[in-house]
Amino acid sequence: MKPKEAYEELVKRVGELDLLRSGYAVLQWDHEVYMPSGGAENRAATMAFLAGMIHEKFVDPRINELITTVEGSTLVSNPESDEAANIRELRYQYDKQTRLPKELVEEINKTRMLAHHEWAEARRNRDFKKFQPWLEKIINLTRQKAEAYGYDGEPYDPLLDDYEPGSAVESIADTLGKLRSELVELLGRITDAGRKPNPSIIERPYDVDRQKIFSEIVCAAIGYDFTDGRLDIATHPFTIGIGPGDTRITTRYNPKRFNDAIFGTIHEAGHALYDMGLERKKHRGMPMGDSISLGIHESQSRMWENLVGRSRPFWTYFFPIAKSMFFKSLDGVSLDEFYGAINYVAPSYIRVEADEVTYNLHILLRFELERAIIKGDLKTGDIPGEWNSRFEKYFGLKVDHDANGCLQDVHWSSALFGYFPTYALGNIYSAQFFNQARKDIPNLEKRFERGDFIVLREWLRDNIHRHGQRYRAEELSRRITGSGLDHKPLMEYLNVKFAEIYGF
Amino acid sequence: MKPKEAYEELVKRVGELDLLRSGYAVLQWDHEVYMPSGGAENRAATMAFLAGMIHEKFVDPRINELITTVEGSTLVSNPESDEAANIRELRYQYDKQTRLPKELVEEINKTRMLAHHEWAEARRNRDFKKFQPWLEKIINLTRQKAEAYGYDGEPYDPLLDDYEPGSAVESIADTLGKLRSELVELLGRITDAGRKPNPSIIERPYDVDRQKIFSEIVCAAIGYDFTDGRLDIATHPFTIGIGPGDTRITTRYNPKRFNDAIFGTIHEAGHALYDMGLERKKHRGMPMGDSISLGIHESQSRMWENLVGRSRPFWTYFFPIAKSMFFKSLDGVSLDEFYGAINYVAPSYIRVEADEVTYNLHILLRFELERAIIKGDLKTGDIPGEWNSRFEKYFGLKVDHDANGCLQDVHWSSALFGYFPTYALGNIYSAQFFNQARKDIPNLEKRFERGDFIVLREWLRDNIHRHGQRYRAEELSRRITGSGLDHKPLMEYLNVKFAEIYGF
Repeated sequence: MKPKEAYEELVKRVGELDLLRSGYAVLQWDHEVYMPSGGAENRAATMAFLAGMIHEKFVDPRINELITTVEGSTLVSNPESDEAANIRELRYQYDKQTRLPKELVEEINKTRMLAHHEWAEARRNRDFKKFQPWLEKIINLTRQKAEAYGYDGEPYDPLLDDYEPGSAVESIADTLGKLRSELVELLGRITDAGRKPNPSIIERPYDVDRQKIFSEIVCAAIGYDFTDGRLDIATHPFTIGIGPGDTRITTRYNPKRFNDAIFGTIHEAGHALYDMGLERKKHRGMPMGDSISLGIHESQSRMWENLVGRSRPFWTYFFPIAKSMFFKSLDGVSLDEFYGAINYVAPSYIRVEADEVTYNLHILLRFELERAIIKGDLKTGDIPGEWNSRFEKYFGLKVDHDANGCLQDVHWSSALFGYFPTYALGNIYSAQFFNQARKDIPNLEKRFERGDFIVLREWLRDNIHRHGQRYRAEELSRRITGSGLDHKPLMEYLNVKFAEIYGF
Repeated sequence: MKPKEAYEELVKRVGELDLLRSGYAVLQWDHEVYMPSGGAENRAATMAFLAGMIHEKFVDPRINELITTVEGSTLVSNPESDEAANIRELRYQYDKQTRLPKELVEEINKTRMLAHHEWAEARRNRDFKKFQPWLEKIINLTRQKAEAYGYDGEPYDPLLDDYEPGSAVESIADTLGKLRSELVELLGRITDAGRKPNPSIIERPYDVDRQKIFSEIVCAAIGYDFTDGRLDIATHPFTIGIGPGDTRITTRYNPKRFNDAIFGTIHEAGHALYDMGLERKKHRGMPMGDSISLGIHESQSRMWENLVGRSRPFWTYFFPIAKSMFFKSLDGVSLDEFYGAINYVAPSYIRVEADEVTYNLHILLRFELERAIIKGDLKTGDIPGEWNSRFEKYFGLKVDHDANGCLQDVHWSSALFGYFPTYALGNIYSAQFFNQARKDIPNLEKRFERGDFIVLREWLRDNIHRHGQRYRAEELSRRITGSGLDHKPLMEYLNVKFAEIYGF
């Protein structure tokens, strides 16, 4: 078989896999958004069957043969060509997916279903002890998974690599450690500041129907195209790329708080813009039509949510609109007061409710714990104690119970070790990219003030989205900004912003 | 291989097929209800791929082997056992599906996509000539299909059999012919009647939000369980059984007409109750967990819509509720006036807007034409003329243009010849079954007046739903009512009802 034929067959097979994945995505979206509860059992069976089918079709030895036939041929001699990137990343995925014994994968999947249930129960009862044996089991299985993958550095590496391909602890730990101590310092300055915004402005009644309209206005303004998507309600908001021309977002509305829906929606729209900017149709199912990593994905959502959505230029444009729509609650409120209120910083227990400054501290705490857990340096029974003592050190708050501590997140019960740090990586990259965009686009802030946000979306599309997986995260960052992962732009941005708001 | 093992493998394979069909159903529902328009192309590709996969998995020679191994074994010696019914119907489906050459199926599928598009355009422009070559092509392919299936009677038989298994023209034509002439007679009496209800009562503003609430109240009262379903809006309302525990209905609201949403919703809920009453979980994907025919399905929807939903006892219970919810439009209206208005009869061009009396005339006209078309007795170019002359004869109305005539329905453009008569069969069976239910359930109308509708649902579940495909339609009718297809109960019901309303 000639390499060209092999490549074509690969395109066909991967394209068909993409259709199945697209079908799966609709089932998932429906499951979270509209499915009647009576359908849960049937849906679980359908999704499990389809997922198994997708997996089997991908790990088919024929896929390996085809990749092997193309590898080393002239088709991939230019390492930056579409073909080379596709073959490189398919090889990577194929090898990783086939390295895990089937029994281990099944055992993990079975256990996480049960553990998830036990975790939810334990969290409700604020009872870590009840969850402990399940967490123990999950950790053991996850460590077996790491061993099966293999690693050069430490066992956490291949887990992190699942979400951030090509990344390893060594390449991020130093940056994350510095970020943590600088954030703790900044938080101290904020806590001690004499001037404080008044957060009660956003804790007023905000009509949900109007919040929905306002959210859609904002999404459309930043370039989310409702012809190719829709905004629905979900308990745990998410973005889902169903296929070319269909990228959906979800949010949740709090009738008494302005921040939740709007910033959540902008966040998801940021993810969606990445998905919409991928050349998914041209490279159906191929790495060139897919996103790079969770970190890069998060850099897009967080840039729109924070560096754009929580900025003064953004609200210079949108505050008058918000004021006219929510006149009852925003009457007499100035832009300055509003800007302060939406950026109010306060240490709190729950990650998903955290502000821009403390959010990363939540992540870094988890990363440090995860790493020690997987290494075997931290026993399962010691997790709550270790969590609470670190929490007090970073946040200056005593954890009152485990539902406000180590039981709060779903990730560990779902065996998602290695996932958390990608949130921090996303925040770091977001500031690096945004810094560069400000240099590349003249008067970016002025444009925002006039409501022109599309210019940034185009920059992102051009510099990041359209490349699919041509480059790994670090390399992409180097190509765009001149340097790899670097927390300095993020800290500089936060220091300047909060010094102004808190007057220090 | 032992018959028992073969049967078990069949159960497993058919069960997996059912999961894929369940996935397909979600894609279909989403496509009609929530999909953003940008997703159309990807969705078409996904659904086509999945449909192809489902077809291939079913026509797999292994399925034939397994069926053959079980056939003639002691496992199926009792013809009324679950196993015997399953094997009998699987054999029937398998043979039918494998009798069509692959090229013909593909040609039909390709042509109907294009023809559908041309039909929509032609209907918009009221221009039959534009659609004629496409209809010609569809008819030719459909006749090839009939030949490939084979038949004893006439070529229309195997087409009808696709929707009404075991049925043939010979067994229904006589009944439908009588029904037609008796309906024309009844319509004449109604047209000539001195007393007429005032239909303007239902042509008033009816708030859409309240219509939705009222529709849900009614659905819940007749036993549609919202834990296992939901009600959404669709341009062309439909019911879809996604799987055990998930049966969804759709409707459309007309803010200025009461009838559309409520009777449409009851109709769909009737279909849904059949689906919910099937033992879909126990007999996953097997004929014993599936409905018998479109005719029997329609008998359920039409019974709830007409014999229950448009009855006086039904509104004796619901009219006070409707009056309290729509007090602005129903103020001062009596039950009699309301009952007359919702049952107003008037010949009209459009089938889907027709009343209980004229509806079947629309169907019978189509059936007569279809039969002649497939036989070759009616040339494509002569369809509009034949349609219009028959229409005038049955309805006493001249067709003004083809969009109000032979271009109105989607069926022919989608190659659905043989489908129409099942609507009439459904209406006929609905009256037969309801007649029997009235005999079996003491004081049925009195119970309706008190809001107890579940008793009828239970009767239907017991006599029809739970049997899946154990019996074919005619036999089921004979077992329940003592006779096969018989239009007399329907005519008797209509004659009595409308004689009272129109005072003749």
